[in-house]
Amino acid sequence: MQDWTVRSRLIPGLDSEWRKKARRCLKEQTRPEGSLGFLETAIERFVAIQRKDRPSCRKKRILIFAADHGVAKEGVSLFPREVTQAMVHNFLNGGATVNALAREIQSEVVVVDVGVDGEFRSTHRNHVVGADGHTSLRFFEKKIRRGTRNFTEEPAMTEKELDQALTVGWDLVHEAKREGVELLGLGEMGIGNTTAASAVVAGLTGWPAEEVTGRGTGLDDLGLAHKIEVIKRAIKLHQDFLKKPFDALQRLGGYEIAAMTGAILAAGSLSLPLVVDGWIVSSSALAAIQMNPRILDYLFFAHQSEEYGHKKLLQSLEAQPFLNLSMRLGEASGAALAMGILEAGVRIYNEVATFSEAGVTNRKK
Amino acid sequence: MQDWTVRSRLIPGLDSEWRKKARRCLKEQTRPEGSLGFLETAIERFVAIQRKDRPSCRKKRILIFAADHGVAKEGVSLFPREVTQAMVHNFLNGGATVNALAREIQSEVVVVDVGVDGEFRSTHRNHVVGADGHTSLRFFEKKIRRGTRNFTEEPAMTEKELDQALTVGWDLVHEAKREGVELLGLGEMGIGNTTAASAVVAGLTGWPAEEVTGRGTGLDDLGLAHKIEVIKRAIKLHQDFLKKPFDALQRLGGYEIAAMTGAILAAGSLSLPLVVDGWIVSSSALAAIQMNPRILDYLFFAHQSEEYGHKKLLQSLEAQPFLNLSMRLGEASGAALAMGILEAGVRIYNEVATFSEAGVTNRKK
Repeated sequence: MQDWTVRSRLIPGLDSEWRKKARRCLKEQTRPEGSLGFLETAIERFVAIQRKDRPSCRKKRILIFAADHGVAKEGVSLFPREVTQAMVHNFLNGGATVNALAREIQSEVVVVDVGVDGEFRSTHRNHVVGADGHTSLRFFEKKIRRGTRNFTEEPAMTEKELDQALTVGWDLVHEAKREGVELLGLGEMGIGNTTAASAVVAGLTGWPAEEVTGRGTGLDDLGLAHKIEVIKRAIKLHQDFLKKPFDALQRLGGYEIAAMTGAILAAGSLSLPLVVDGWIVSSSALAAIQMNPRILDYLFFAHQSEEYGHKKLLQSLEAQPFLNLSMRLGEASGAALAMGILEAGVRIYNEVATFSEAGVTNRKK
Repeated sequence: MQDWTVRSRLIPGLDSEWRKKARRCLKEQTRPEGSLGFLETAIERFVAIQRKDRPSCRKKRILIFAADHGVAKEGVSLFPREVTQAMVHNFLNGGATVNALAREIQSEVVVVDVGVDGEFRSTHRNHVVGADGHTSLRFFEKKIRRGTRNFTEEPAMTEKELDQALTVGWDLVHEAKREGVELLGLGEMGIGNTTAASAVVAGLTGWPAEEVTGRGTGLDDLGLAHKIEVIKRAIKLHQDFLKKPFDALQRLGGYEIAAMTGAILAAGSLSLPLVVDGWIVSSSALAAIQMNPRILDYLFFAHQSEEYGHKKLLQSLEAQPFLNLSMRLGEASGAALAMGILEAGVRIYNEVATFSEAGVTNRKK
């Protein structure tokens, strides 16, 4: 994984001159200083990432990575494994929640099979499957394997597979950059993946399983206790092999989780602002952050998920989520809502009159 | 104020059949049950308010009420009184933050002078002043007086003026309903009005001034202590005359605060969903809620403001704000962002495929 260590080092620091410039522009606008709260610092960061006098996030793209999980065999989810494939079909037909939200914010959607246990119609392979409203909807078949291995018994994936998964995310973000995308949102689909995400966070932080494990799609108390026990078993099995950030991804992660880490590292290295959805994308982000904390400057956390552990993780990163609706859906649904808010923030930056333009005094008494 | 007591009684309860129907529809959509969190209950309420198979909030209107405050003489704000008038001009020129946000969500804006200490050009009176982007921007001159009286010395307004102010808000919401508006957002502008709102909330709840008083546009510790002292003095002066909900509005409120209470009561009685902005609109809402708690079903709280006391008030109402960005701008800026989120929720309701349509199993294992 030498290559990824090098790649993660190449993330540039935020441009401090642009950040200062953005702050000055916001301060001159007809509002009490700082009155937009965290939205204001988000706008500042966006401008410093994009480095344009008139920033823009008109061209938006949501990337949804889907994969299955060996650990699902342990009975950690309420839903059967085939739901992953069925939901990918649903995305491709424009029928899922994220599709409605993408239409609302006029974002493209790219769905990526990085490890689903099932095949998709050949017409769905590697090309545009149709326009969803006014925005494009595409599918990429990048399957590494039909689901990870059961990490309570063996590593979820090989080192080679981890590299493949990281590369899928990395390459798709490079393609987005080439195609002029100005704002990315990340999301996922995969029955069993809250378990994998909890295991990854536990592996990366050393926090006890109880503190990072939630109810997923709706487990009861007994189900939750079982899920915690499964994660504890996995951590115990792999504990001597969790020395480096990517070890947790390889041993406890999922193909979609690793692909999103690759996507996040690419967003940083290409200076592309990226909106992190909920718990699972945050676990991907944590691995990237441990490789290089500078990546945090490029990330916007959409919401504080209902998934137990997300609050603790966000606090430890000093990340300020935009929304607090107790959502726990995944599939980039929170990211899509937050992308709309960030776009509104960029519009504020571009359009609000300054005190002098508007003839409003900003002199205090 | 007999009339207002009668009016507030006429607010219908939410239609329980429509609410059940909405819940059933959401449950059939391809998502784990409840996974949209509070957005889901917001959608349910919206559908039960509007009672349509295909709910809509395409036609949106933001009402901004502006007025000046006698208590500003006590030095409770960082900004001079003339900023109220200057900001109204800024709204009418499309240069304020709320204008940018209204363009983003494609909402109409209606600005209402209900007590500004200043005159506006005659061309701005009671008609459309121009299209702001694709949406209309209108101004209404409904001035009751050039600012309230200083409530540390006498009641902020007379009973007749309170009635006038309530009526301005009431009538404008009736007009909105006649014109086919489907979603309302409320906001305000008025130097000194966080002080009035804090005094109103203290008067309505009996909470101590310290617990409901914040820094407004950015007071330092000394300024805050002075503001608290001013509010305490006012509460002491009026404490024997705060028997009924509207007493606090009359003695401690502002023309814009009272107008928004009238608007909120009208929204309830006409079954129009309404988004409450921040601290000041919440004080207006509290008066309406004390008149008739059923009004809560029609209100959507946009965000938890940075203004100290808002958290406590929202919690006491069991209200769940959409956003938590530490904003403290007012002028319906939070409301506009939340209106966009609510519209996205309505789109989810209308467009997401059901389990059976999508061929996804919702049977648990």
